[in-house]
Amino acid sequence: MEKRELLYEGKAKKIFATTDEGVAWVEYKDAATAFNGEKKEEIIGKGALTNGITSLLFSKLHEAGIPTHFIKQISSTEQLVKKVSIIPLEVVTRNVVAGSLSKRLGLDEGQLLKHKLVEFYYKDDALGDPLLTEAHIQELELATKEEVHLLQQKALEVNTVLTNLFAELGVRLIDFKLEFGKLADGEILLADEISPDTCRLWDSETEEKLDKDVFRRNLGSLVDVYETIYTKLGGRQYV
Amino acid sequence: MEKRELLYEGKAKKIFATTDEGVAWVEYKDAATAFNGEKKEEIIGKGALTNGITSLLFSKLHEAGIPTHFIKQISSTEQLVKKVSIIPLEVVTRNVVAGSLSKRLGLDEGQLLKHKLVEFYYKDDALGDPLLTEAHIQELELATKEEVHLLQQKALEVNTVLTNLFAELGVRLIDFKLEFGKLADGEILLADEISPDTCRLWDSETEEKLDKDVFRRNLGSLVDVYETIYTKLGGRQYV
Repeated sequence: MEKRELLYEGKAKKIFATTDEGVAWVEYKDAATAFNGEKKEEIIGKGALTNGITSLLFSKLHEAGIPTHFIKQISSTEQLVKKVSIIPLEVVTRNVVAGSLSKRLGLDEGQLLKHKLVEFYYKDDALGDPLLTEAHIQELELATKEEVHLLQQKALEVNTVLTNLFAELGVRLIDFKLEFGKLADGEILLADEISPDTCRLWDSETEEKLDKDVFRRNLGSLVDVYETIYTKLGGRQYV
Repeated sequence: MEKRELLYEGKAKKIFATTDEGVAWVEYKDAATAFNGEKKEEIIGKGALTNGITSLLFSKLHEAGIPTHFIKQISSTEQLVKKVSIIPLEVVTRNVVAGSLSKRLGLDEGQLLKHKLVEFYYKDDALGDPLLTEAHIQELELATKEEVHLLQQKALEVNTVLTNLFAELGVRLIDFKLEFGKLADGEILLADEISPDTCRLWDSETEEKLDKDVFRRNLGSLVDVYETIYTKLGGRQYV
């Protein structure tokens, strides 16, 4: 299989076509961004860490019976995935109050939620990824009612698998963002990435932040905490 | 019945206790505010118009079989209402895209919605009245699932009555905000006010704005357009 033209370039990834119609080639960039792109930095080694962590986590989810777009890692910063058309919703699952939820509802960061919360945001940088209700999703025809419930269900399943996985490693899964895509036949697969770029992860003992909040809030070295997560997950330098 | 101590002062109204435990005394102020209180003006005659219009509309809703807190108008700027505890949700019903929805979803103002939209906002000035999903409402324990559905149902009923009423007067009901309250026995009643402060109303022919957007966007005299609505509704100077 060979790499072909660039299909899409996002803030943290490039996606290329391949000689196989059904397969895309993902390259993770050494770029960190926050606040809808307002804060931006090149961070050497980040692409390899987010690629490595995503590859490990998608493999774990596959083992747990959750279908994803992931095929295999092919280099330190690259992976092959099934080609899907991304549903323009950011599906955010929350176990503990943090970040925008804390600001929106006036709740203390760190407060345990009574109910695991699944939120949908419109994946639209120009609009600042606004929160959507189910009625908004229907109005915009981003997904059907049935699809919304399926995404909700899948997000909660991923939450259970990842919460348990991280708990064994001494890490609390606070919240995370998923994206889903559709195969040509309409099947919905978990897609995009799962890494400290898209999850909030706190050390279970010390509550130390092990995720992109380190970059957002200038709390230390992003590479150091991403490496901590990668190592805990059993990741090794890609050869 | 006599007026007693001030129970609550909002941006546009004062609410007083009365010698009757179950009755509150509402006084509409000559104050216009917008953008969460950032824009503020005293506008002589506004209190009488919002009181007059609310009194007429609550009477119409009562005739249409929709229970409200309204008892009767007692002066140009005052009315008596049943004492309720307000549910801290702003229930917004939309027929046509306008205002914050247009900005949030990137839709053109004036575009007809495919489905009538009911949204819930958290009545909290300090937080800027944020949009809430049903899951947020449950998490904050602002209303039960059943109550949310009841409010939604009631909002759509009010929408039908008011849309038809205004259509007969050559006015389109674009969107509006309702608040609901609970009686001591738990019964939920429509409460607060319904006026051009809380509705978007456009002339059916000219699309001229006949609501608070005139004040928000500096489009002309608020009193003139509120008077237009009051007169269309059959309102006369209170004697």
